[in-house]
Amino acid sequence: MKTMKQNICNRRTFLTVTTLTAGSAVFLKRNIALSTQISNEKSVMKFSFRPYELKLNHPFTLATSSRTVTPGVQVEIEFGGKTGYGEAALPPYLGESTESVSAFLKRIDWTAFSNPFEMEDILGSIDEIADNNTAAKAAVDIALHDLNGKLLGVPCYQLLGLSPKQIPPTTFTISIAEPDVIRTQTQNAAGKFKILKVKLGRDNDKEIIETIRSVTDLPLIVDVNQGWKDKHYALDNIYWLREKGIVMVEQPLPKSWWEEAGWLTERSPLPIFADESIQRISDVMKIKGYFSGINIKLMKCTGMREAWKMITLARACHLGVMLGCMTETSCAIAAAVHLSSAADFVDLDGNLLIANDLFQGIRLENGRQLPTDLPGLGINKIEQ
Amino acid sequence: MKTMKQNICNRRTFLTVTTLTAGSAVFLKRNIALSTQISNEKSVMKFSFRPYELKLNHPFTLATSSRTVTPGVQVEIEFGGKTGYGEAALPPYLGESTESVSAFLKRIDWTAFSNPFEMEDILGSIDEIADNNTAAKAAVDIALHDLNGKLLGVPCYQLLGLSPKQIPPTTFTISIAEPDVIRTQTQNAAGKFKILKVKLGRDNDKEIIETIRSVTDLPLIVDVNQGWKDKHYALDNIYWLREKGIVMVEQPLPKSWWEEAGWLTERSPLPIFADESIQRISDVMKIKGYFSGINIKLMKCTGMREAWKMITLARACHLGVMLGCMTETSCAIAAAVHLSSAADFVDLDGNLLIANDLFQGIRLENGRQLPTDLPGLGINKIEQ
Repeated sequence: MKTMKQNICNRRTFLTVTTLTAGSAVFLKRNIALSTQISNEKSVMKFSFRPYELKLNHPFTLATSSRTVTPGVQVEIEFGGKTGYGEAALPPYLGESTESVSAFLKRIDWTAFSNPFEMEDILGSIDEIADNNTAAKAAVDIALHDLNGKLLGVPCYQLLGLSPKQIPPTTFTISIAEPDVIRTQTQNAAGKFKILKVKLGRDNDKEIIETIRSVTDLPLIVDVNQGWKDKHYALDNIYWLREKGIVMVEQPLPKSWWEEAGWLTERSPLPIFADESIQRISDVMKIKGYFSGINIKLMKCTGMREAWKMITLARACHLGVMLGCMTETSCAIAAAVHLSSAADFVDLDGNLLIANDLFQGIRLENGRQLPTDLPGLGINKIEQ
Repeated sequence: MKTMKQNICNRRTFLTVTTLTAGSAVFLKRNIALSTQISNEKSVMKFSFRPYELKLNHPFTLATSSRTVTPGVQVEIEFGGKTGYGEAALPPYLGESTESVSAFLKRIDWTAFSNPFEMEDILGSIDEIADNNTAAKAAVDIALHDLNGKLLGVPCYQLLGLSPKQIPPTTFTISIAEPDVIRTQTQNAAGKFKILKVKLGRDNDKEIIETIRSVTDLPLIVDVNQGWKDKHYALDNIYWLREKGIVMVEQPLPKSWWEEAGWLTERSPLPIFADESIQRISDVMKIKGYFSGINIKLMKCTGMREAWKMITLARACHLGVMLGCMTETSCAIAAAVHLSSAADFVDLDGNLLIANDLFQGIRLENGRQLPTDLPGLGINKIEQ
């Protein structure tokens, strides 16, 4: 049996000849041919993956840990002469590893799928292989979106009906560090970004904010990463933060503190977004009444398709939407960027934090992370 | 200034020449060229519309009215050498008319839009022109989906990540009539369909069901169209209907009777779907707890994009999904058919009820309404 790739090549030869005589009908014909072929033939998508360790420019410090690398897995899906790129980023606190991702990806039976556009089926089947493994699932989802955009010759945002014109500026995260280092980081960031983010939740919250405010008046988001353990303390802090020009507070309380979160959101003068309290679409309905919005991360929600559904659902629940990331190459960041015109807050600085990006194609312009207008995710591999 | 169409023609001529030397890179190049061109140039979509009256094969009888024609408006959007078709179907009880649709469509400023793929913006702006006017809005939405599929050379279901393989059989509606006529209708339908639907809600419900059951054992949906005015009477009827092989009940009680609907759904041995109680995405959250599912109709919800969002939302609320229609040509029916693999119940027989369809492209196969694999909605105009 001929492979899909061979067939497309043959068809191309055929069409090259046809072009000479048939003129403008050719493109339509070619597209119908491709479409018919995809739905009728039992071709197989060629899937491959390899571990890839991301090196951070600076140690990454949360309220509970610090690290200098992030493990990851890069995936590729080849079909119809195109290659779609995807990625699993694996910060250790989320519980996936290169081993678990590899084991999961090996369980996918690609012979069961013949048409990469049938994402509802493909991603649904893959989701059912095992619970969790959300980053592994996201890697496949991202590669499929990239592939499909390339097969159609258009950027992913276009397939979603979105326009990059509406993309909000991205936050850039100031790491927790000594005041001097925070000042330097903030100075460097203030020239390039329109909004900053800082991780709070230790015992020096006010000192960090004052340090940043000694350098810039830019709007700030604070991400507490569950670091505050008392709702009254949280509310007092938030009132103080509002005076300091903070515009939003992410996950102030432990993720299981639903009643306290609801109490806080009701009283807070700033919007309170869920991060650790939200993972997948099944969590969105629970959020209503407890938070003002949700932080959607592709690695936690299995990728672009579910993220887009979560955005739809959040809007129907009158919840705000933030798009966040892990430390990721420009591949997974691009995947989120293509969705980002539908978000209120964008926190997609992950590719800017690593020293060994594998891709180029996202440009930081006027504080906004923008996609190219190339097909799919619009990224190209950097020669290593 | 050259028009978009002229530019594409010029580019085609250029690419025809390139094809001879550059081989497989050509299609990609052409697609990038198209994409870049669409986003960079101030081209205008050429929009036109005309009233078109649908003639029904048989008088259409609801619990509250009867008619032999349905007014409609056909729309076209031309862009990039392709034409997208859309349609507003206007059964009088929904409050829109050819006059109101024409007045609404004239208010759209097409010079404000340059890229037909930016559906979130375009449809959002059009939605804000005025409240209601949902069929007029749906006509534009459907034409844009058709156009975009044609510009990309793929069927709409493919752009949604769906597969026609999962499309459920459509119901076919047996009209309320004298027993002899019902028997004849049922006999004719039973050979072609796998599930039937009947309108109840007058004083002869049991007689109608017995008449149909004298001919066929096919599963049946009953649509009461708010016709029952007592919840206990409704529950008794539903128990009786279950014994007769009915599988679902649509809108048994008046649309404003929320508490009674919740009472009934809780006790009913059959799923209860909302029809008149649901219109747009903003209504879906209200449905939870009162009904088992929703009937989504493009003419009531402004079209395919909002319908797809409503399906996402309904799934998250654990609600069943039915896709319904008005009497429509194969254009609007195709639009719903492209979404229908995501539904539990499909009630898309509208094109089968009219004598003067304008399009072909939907085929009834084994009781299922199936799309072609042609680009966009996959329909072609019938020569009149």
